[in-house]
Amino acid sequence: METIRIIGIDPGLRRTGWGVVESHGNSLRFLASGTVKSNEKLDLASRLNQLYEGLEQIIHAHMPHEAAVENTFVNKDAAATLKLGQARGIAMLAPARAGLPVAEYAPNAVKKSVIGVGHGEKQQIHMMVKVLMPKATFDGSDAADALALAICHAHHRQSAVARLKIAARV
Amino acid sequence: METIRIIGIDPGLRRTGWGVVESHGNSLRFLASGTVKSNEKLDLASRLNQLYEGLEQIIHAHMPHEAAVENTFVNKDAAATLKLGQARGIAMLAPARAGLPVAEYAPNAVKKSVIGVGHGEKQQIHMMVKVLMPKATFDGSDAADALALAICHAHHRQSAVARLKIAARV
Repeated sequence: METIRIIGIDPGLRRTGWGVVESHGNSLRFLASGTVKSNEKLDLASRLNQLYEGLEQIIHAHMPHEAAVENTFVNKDAAATLKLGQARGIAMLAPARAGLPVAEYAPNAVKKSVIGVGHGEKQQIHMMVKVLMPKATFDGSDAADALALAICHAHHRQSAVARLKIAARV
Repeated sequence: METIRIIGIDPGLRRTGWGVVESHGNSLRFLASGTVKSNEKLDLASRLNQLYEGLEQIIHAHMPHEAAVENTFVNKDAAATLKLGQARGIAMLAPARAGLPVAEYAPNAVKKSVIGVGHGEKQQIHMMVKVLMPKATFDGSDAADALALAICHAHHRQSAVARLKIAARV
């Protein structure tokens, strides 16, 4: 049975959470997690570059095989949505440039996969991450969400990666 | 008097326009323009990678000193805004990673700079690009808009680049 290393990424311009897990059959193992931050005093292009370089280093250090990124598009207003989109573009580009297939999951799919239902509080997700991987540590909500994304991808990866491969062949 | 090469980028997930001009004092010279397209049949991460690689090649070929990117955040709906944001993130990252300062201009600023007023039809902008640089050619509306952005930056660059430098120093 193959062992697959997955990076989950929860994008945000100020804070982008990431988490790496190892999936082997039905078992999950926590490897690492953290948060890449951008300096709010810098201009936007430099901040996006900080996010990119941070993710590039993490991918280089942990060598994941596949990536999962959160697919949110509901937000306060257009300006906030555009900001999130920019960070999300970087969060998808970094693994794509490293040659990883990048799957996308809606927040509801992540909740369903981790807590069993498509709704629930952030705290329930974080508790379930600890239940599923007792050794998991995270430095905040974004990193915990990223770990939940990686867990969701571990459950869905076979069909998700097959879809990406079919799309690439067309 | 210094000669500055400027790349203007008009981001879009399907089509990202670009245009390179040379600015020397008050004179402007057209160098090149075009459109980077992404393959709609591919997954999002691969499409963002296509945009990035296209822009990277153009920057490498034309060696601009500074970049200008359109700053839109009004859009049809949240999904369209997120999509634009993702492309925009890539359009800002590519020049930033090449070490260029990246200035942002709102569509109204571009119109004001090129046609003299803050409103006007797309076609007026395209005509004025031809008036200001008779040798300019463009393969579509996105490339023409990118050239207008580069012209706008040529007019505003001294104050815009000073702002970026002050921000970086804080």
